[in-house]
Amino acid sequence: MNRRDYLKTLAALTAATAVGGSAVGCVGKTGRSVKFGGGKMVMQVTPIELQMRHTFTISGFSRDVTPSILVSITYDGVTGYGEGGLPPYMVGQNHETVQKFLSKVDLSQFADPFQLDDILTYVDKIDEGMTCAKSAVDIALHDLIGKLLGVPVWKWFGYTASKTPDTSFTIGIDTEEVVRKKTEEAAPYNIVKVKLGIDEATDKKLIETVRSVTNKPLLVDANQGWKTKELALDMIHWLKERGVLMVEQPMPKTVFDDMAWVTERSPLPTYADESCQRLRDVPRLHGVFNGINIKLIKCSGLYEARKMISTAEALGMRVMIGCTTETSCAVSAAAQLSPRVDFADLDGPLLIANDYFEGYNVVNGKITLNERPGIGILPINN
Amino acid sequence: MNRRDYLKTLAALTAATAVGGSAVGCVGKTGRSVKFGGGKMVMQVTPIELQMRHTFTISGFSRDVTPSILVSITYDGVTGYGEGGLPPYMVGQNHETVQKFLSKVDLSQFADPFQLDDILTYVDKIDEGMTCAKSAVDIALHDLIGKLLGVPVWKWFGYTASKTPDTSFTIGIDTEEVVRKKTEEAAPYNIVKVKLGIDEATDKKLIETVRSVTNKPLLVDANQGWKTKELALDMIHWLKERGVLMVEQPMPKTVFDDMAWVTERSPLPTYADESCQRLRDVPRLHGVFNGINIKLIKCSGLYEARKMISTAEALGMRVMIGCTTETSCAVSAAAQLSPRVDFADLDGPLLIANDYFEGYNVVNGKITLNERPGIGILPINN
Repeated sequence: MNRRDYLKTLAALTAATAVGGSAVGCVGKTGRSVKFGGGKMVMQVTPIELQMRHTFTISGFSRDVTPSILVSITYDGVTGYGEGGLPPYMVGQNHETVQKFLSKVDLSQFADPFQLDDILTYVDKIDEGMTCAKSAVDIALHDLIGKLLGVPVWKWFGYTASKTPDTSFTIGIDTEEVVRKKTEEAAPYNIVKVKLGIDEATDKKLIETVRSVTNKPLLVDANQGWKTKELALDMIHWLKERGVLMVEQPMPKTVFDDMAWVTERSPLPTYADESCQRLRDVPRLHGVFNGINIKLIKCSGLYEARKMISTAEALGMRVMIGCTTETSCAVSAAAQLSPRVDFADLDGPLLIANDYFEGYNVVNGKITLNERPGIGILPINN
Repeated sequence: MNRRDYLKTLAALTAATAVGGSAVGCVGKTGRSVKFGGGKMVMQVTPIELQMRHTFTISGFSRDVTPSILVSITYDGVTGYGEGGLPPYMVGQNHETVQKFLSKVDLSQFADPFQLDDILTYVDKIDEGMTCAKSAVDIALHDLIGKLLGVPVWKWFGYTASKTPDTSFTIGIDTEEVVRKKTEEAAPYNIVKVKLGIDEATDKKLIETVRSVTNKPLLVDANQGWKTKELALDMIHWLKERGVLMVEQPMPKTVFDDMAWVTERSPLPTYADESCQRLRDVPRLHGVFNGINIKLIKCSGLYEARKMISTAEALGMRVMIGCTTETSCAVSAAAQLSPRVDFADLDGPLLIANDYFEGYNVVNGKITLNERPGIGILPINN
């Protein structure tokens, strides 16, 4: 569904629920909005496709289009928006499965969206996995509650907006020429994130290409690509000499003993990405990585993300927040947590051509939160 | 300071700050309210003494009066209330030291109370320890924010009020006659908590005395009293046969290996009390106890308490919430978290003769939260 049609369905839904209308759930095909729920909260699900500005490559995947799912929840005439991106690495989560899952979500049993703990516990138990869809519901509820309270979510959480970090801007794996061009396009950003993990020679070449264009600080995401602990540690030492600040997921996600060996010796902090999906993973990663990369589509949303931040704090671990290819809806939600993290990789909307919302901004490289209630987004009206 | 005088100082403070007045901090003597701060938030500190209905004995201490500290923070004409009880086991925290600590708290550097994360991080770093005073500030900020948002704190946290548990009612260590009488007075409550930890014979006699009056489920707090793992495990087995649901702090607080041995074999869940003070303690207790007892005066308040609940969830540990001898201010704050815990021991105000506030209620033994904004309390006007 394109932006214009999406806006029309939103307006109709808000009008209907504001006068006490209801809608019945069913599973829709790709590209059509479907409404669920006959209670006080009415949910609408809209599958969308995001056009990438450039073909995006990370170790193992290459893509031009990324599917995503928009969820809106309307209560008492107020609509909260949520989204979960559906990148290929979230295996089994696509338009069809996500809509099927969401068709089972019956919010009519809950009096109001403030029952966040109960609602999200219920949604989580409907099926295993499906965290992209769960996150979309979680974000919509947070946006809705923020709007009902009349405050931005970051303020509801007790954070200070000015504490946001710079976002990194991600460069995928590509030809030398494209990498050079993309690095040049990263000029507005203060930190560049480079995806590695092909092989030692290619990885080093990529870094050298980036370094031929910029001397900005770099983050590296190895995406599980280094298969031995010795290679991982050698690469990290080499990267440190080239102005890299941290390394994400150097080794395969289930390799814990060797990863702990690397972290113990690493001159750079290591962050778990694929190894860290949900709250229960965090304690297991203590001593294995120095920090965790939280993404809302992995952990089921903001509510669980905050628990992960607290658990990391209890364990003395670092936190970064990431995203996938998503609109300014999901990424503005993630940005609400950014005042509490060490690194933020919130460039999703910067990499797509057809954003559906305006929301958080990046000003001189720094994530900038606005004062709008909820997650601070507005549908783009054209 | 008595209730009537306390109310007068509150009214004066609220009036002054509502028209932009300010006050300068200094350290007051016991019984006199003192105002701090020249910024947008003005803090008032009032030392009070709580009269116990009965002399209260737990292993090691006996008392008729418990000091407490009230903190109010006024912003834009709205006042939030906080409190930290000062029982003798919080060594080094008394009216004098707590007021000295609070005189260092300068809220003028913060724009508004919503900057909760920054404010509480700042307060926590002023001095080590002093968690009773820190909790009083934390509670006042939560009450204030809830009032500014126009919602109860439990709703702000995403909880459902109807999910509150029964509170236990605590019976201290005393003569057989007094224990029998107190157990009879516990008639309105559905769970009785018994303090043990003297010696095996006395402990068993106490339980038998309680059991001669009631067959209600019991919680047991051994207050570190059992010095060997064998005694602890034997006692727990014996207690299970007598309808006890769980045991708090069977062994001395720094005994971890033996306590883990007990927990592994225990037929009842074990909860850490003295072993669990703050957030950083929680991961260390994994495998040592089945759960933690959170008290706001131990952990510095609601903000950290929620992080502890999240960390316990990550570790698969249980949570109970307790209190000390405090008014309905501090205990109504703790009650806001009770929908998320397995057991609640929130009987503080029930054990004192001179409560300063009305707030949460116990209805047919169950903790009952109200719909008032903030922590839901009103000063008692007589």
